[in-house]
Amino acid sequence: MTNFRAVAIDYAHLNHQRFLDALKEFVSIPSVSTDPERSNDMLEAAQWVADRLRDLDCLNVQLFPTAGYPVVYGELMKAGPAAKTILVYGHYDVQPAEPLELWESDAFEPEVRGDNLYGRGASDMKGQVMATLAAVEAVSHNGGMPVNLKFLIEGEEEIGSPNLEEFLEAHKDMLSCDFAINPDTGMLAADLPTITYALRGLAYFELRVYGPSHDLHSGLYGGVVHNPAQVLCDLISGMHDSQGRVTLPGFYDNVRPIDQDEREELSRLPTTDAFYREETGVPVLWGEVGYTPVERVGARPTLEVNGLYSGFTGEGSKTVLPAWAMAKISCRLVPDQNPDVVYRQLKAYLENHAPETVRYEVKQLVNGPASISDRQSDAVQTVIKALETVWGKRPAFRREGGSVPVVAHFQTYLGIETANFGFALPGDNAHGPNEKLHLPTWQRGIDALVHFFFNIGE
Amino acid sequence: MTNFRAVAIDYAHLNHQRFLDALKEFVSIPSVSTDPERSNDMLEAAQWVADRLRDLDCLNVQLFPTAGYPVVYGELMKAGPAAKTILVYGHYDVQPAEPLELWESDAFEPEVRGDNLYGRGASDMKGQVMATLAAVEAVSHNGGMPVNLKFLIEGEEEIGSPNLEEFLEAHKDMLSCDFAINPDTGMLAADLPTITYALRGLAYFELRVYGPSHDLHSGLYGGVVHNPAQVLCDLISGMHDSQGRVTLPGFYDNVRPIDQDEREELSRLPTTDAFYREETGVPVLWGEVGYTPVERVGARPTLEVNGLYSGFTGEGSKTVLPAWAMAKISCRLVPDQNPDVVYRQLKAYLENHAPETVRYEVKQLVNGPASISDRQSDAVQTVIKALETVWGKRPAFRREGGSVPVVAHFQTYLGIETANFGFALPGDNAHGPNEKLHLPTWQRGIDALVHFFFNIGE
Repeated sequence: MTNFRAVAIDYAHLNHQRFLDALKEFVSIPSVSTDPERSNDMLEAAQWVADRLRDLDCLNVQLFPTAGYPVVYGELMKAGPAAKTILVYGHYDVQPAEPLELWESDAFEPEVRGDNLYGRGASDMKGQVMATLAAVEAVSHNGGMPVNLKFLIEGEEEIGSPNLEEFLEAHKDMLSCDFAINPDTGMLAADLPTITYALRGLAYFELRVYGPSHDLHSGLYGGVVHNPAQVLCDLISGMHDSQGRVTLPGFYDNVRPIDQDEREELSRLPTTDAFYREETGVPVLWGEVGYTPVERVGARPTLEVNGLYSGFTGEGSKTVLPAWAMAKISCRLVPDQNPDVVYRQLKAYLENHAPETVRYEVKQLVNGPASISDRQSDAVQTVIKALETVWGKRPAFRREGGSVPVVAHFQTYLGIETANFGFALPGDNAHGPNEKLHLPTWQRGIDALVHFFFNIGE
Repeated sequence: MTNFRAVAIDYAHLNHQRFLDALKEFVSIPSVSTDPERSNDMLEAAQWVADRLRDLDCLNVQLFPTAGYPVVYGELMKAGPAAKTILVYGHYDVQPAEPLELWESDAFEPEVRGDNLYGRGASDMKGQVMATLAAVEAVSHNGGMPVNLKFLIEGEEEIGSPNLEEFLEAHKDMLSCDFAINPDTGMLAADLPTITYALRGLAYFELRVYGPSHDLHSGLYGGVVHNPAQVLCDLISGMHDSQGRVTLPGFYDNVRPIDQDEREELSRLPTTDAFYREETGVPVLWGEVGYTPVERVGARPTLEVNGLYSGFTGEGSKTVLPAWAMAKISCRLVPDQNPDVVYRQLKAYLENHAPETVRYEVKQLVNGPASISDRQSDAVQTVIKALETVWGKRPAFRREGGSVPVVAHFQTYLGIETANFGFALPGDNAHGPNEKLHLPTWQRGIDALVHFFFNIGE
């Protein structure tokens, strides 16, 4: 009897270069969803994914229009009605590549250097999408797929999936399945396969403070006009207390505490103080007093300044008293915080603290809830086995600091659990310059997905 | 006997359009000293001034090289050794025009709309330089100049005149004179001629705060890394106390107090709370407790944020935890503060307050002392008379918030007093978009300069 599993693994290895070439093609499409000038590239990326699904003999391949960018959908249902059906989630959009000058090679001309492929989206998450497509090809072209698959590859994950809920609501029947897999999460280390059972939510805001009606000469007016850049700094500075806690009123009211069992499990992870210092290059860590680094990143909410802008920022000096100042501010949320409630908390903070000398505006740009999954589910157990086969060790369980609101949305709209396991590494620079994908880990990820599909079918 | 004074005034009025055309030509040269890409325009502006001095029959017209942009010099010494000699100061450089999108007409395509000429430098100070040239032409072409003139028109005023002291030191003999006039100051209102007897100094800094070695994903690292944009905001926020006072250690130690007489004189100026609110469009003024607006702008030091930059500042959202953050910060200084001492005070503040989680750098970009002049000097008395003749009222005396370090330098290197009187108006938007020159006031300014030259010669 043919060992289809071994044949499929061999096939995946023999075709490594072809899969890598396909990934390079995918990465070379600058599908930056936040940039309106990239809308043609976005459609090209969606079409690219649809073409690959057709190559896999998927049926019902479509680009479903939304109010924003289309959702790519396709079905591979050859395993028959008795077999399980899995929803494969992914996204074809990427973060902006700026600042471009910090890239060692062009962000959208993917380049292999050493063991890594460099390019925007190589890790987050075009590499992960391609790993799934490669594993499906390896399995289905060598004995047939033992499980039914539905693919949902969206184009707005990096801008907070603003149209996904409506899509899920409208296509509940089409999307019905046993559970979902989402490879948009990472591993704790190249030798430590990881299952992410909790994800933080995101509430992203833009705050603008307006002072004088126009830029002023800082000599002629300095001393009588409240500088809006200074006010913005005062407001931001007040958003944390001396214990590293966020001061928005009621911010911690709905935060689910971590129990002692979970604290002990998290304490066994290798993401120590030293790990984070090495990854980030900072001399000393910082954060909320009373929690370990892994707890602060996974199980506690935060507030970050993502951008600041005011006045003159060029070379040299300009003695302007600026008319306005802007900050991008975002909160990572944990169960059971609600992004809309946090928006109201931010507005309440501003009402309490903004001086009468200025005017301000705050806009909500992204809005995604946190999620936490059942570690005992069938889906998760099947993943554990596949990861153990490839890496030879039991995977780590962790809460991740990043946000994949789709996991909460799948619970809400489709009533399904999601197994979150992807093959990105901590040093991949997702969202930063010189984003990369570690190719040996990527290959192991393809192997693990092959095993996962066979495990499900058994 | 010919009334040369009346003839010169008529000449100035008859040639208004020609003088205005010359000014438009001057304004159309984008001589932005802080922008290295404008260096050819800077030389063109210097050459333009030198050509005008030659048109006036000046001798010894030269572009004196410096480590930066040249000083334009010329002499008109026909009044003979018994007559007084006056040094006419000006600058041919301008501030950057950015943000360009806020200009209603191109910053470097000067346009007359209504009573005003719009363009970068129209008011600060190409218009003032041109007024002086026009007055000299009107007087010297109609009976001869009753006073000797030396022109010193520099190209680095807007970047803090970094090479002027060396030039003054090296050319003391050439520059010897009775006193200087400097039209690089303004009037309190179109119907209120103004003499500025004190000017604030300037100490301009760039502060950079460095956190992680590269931009991070705010989800994966938010909670363990001290955000440098947040630290920058904390540091800036701490630079003022709740009374609007600057907290740099020792900042007020050398500030010369204002005595009761001067407070009373300043209280008579029309620059009231309502005036500043109208000029700036802010609902409520702000500033150091215990001082009136006119005192805060003229006689008290300040600290302003001139620019802020960090992370992602484009459209939409990017969930970056930025690697660094930058602020442009400047202090306006009063007698007897020293800009180098203030630099040390800023460094001491940062040493006391910067957390160990980040690294920072602070650079001193501009460095100019404050100055205060003798209100009883001959020079000032002659100006009073000229302004009274044209406006029919005694001029106001004020301290100005802006910085003209050259006045202090003239005291130090040449041992001379400077009469500071120019014809810019509060609403001219010097340094902001839509800078303009009020042409009826400009014409009166030319008349006043004509009278001033005759007064000196009497």
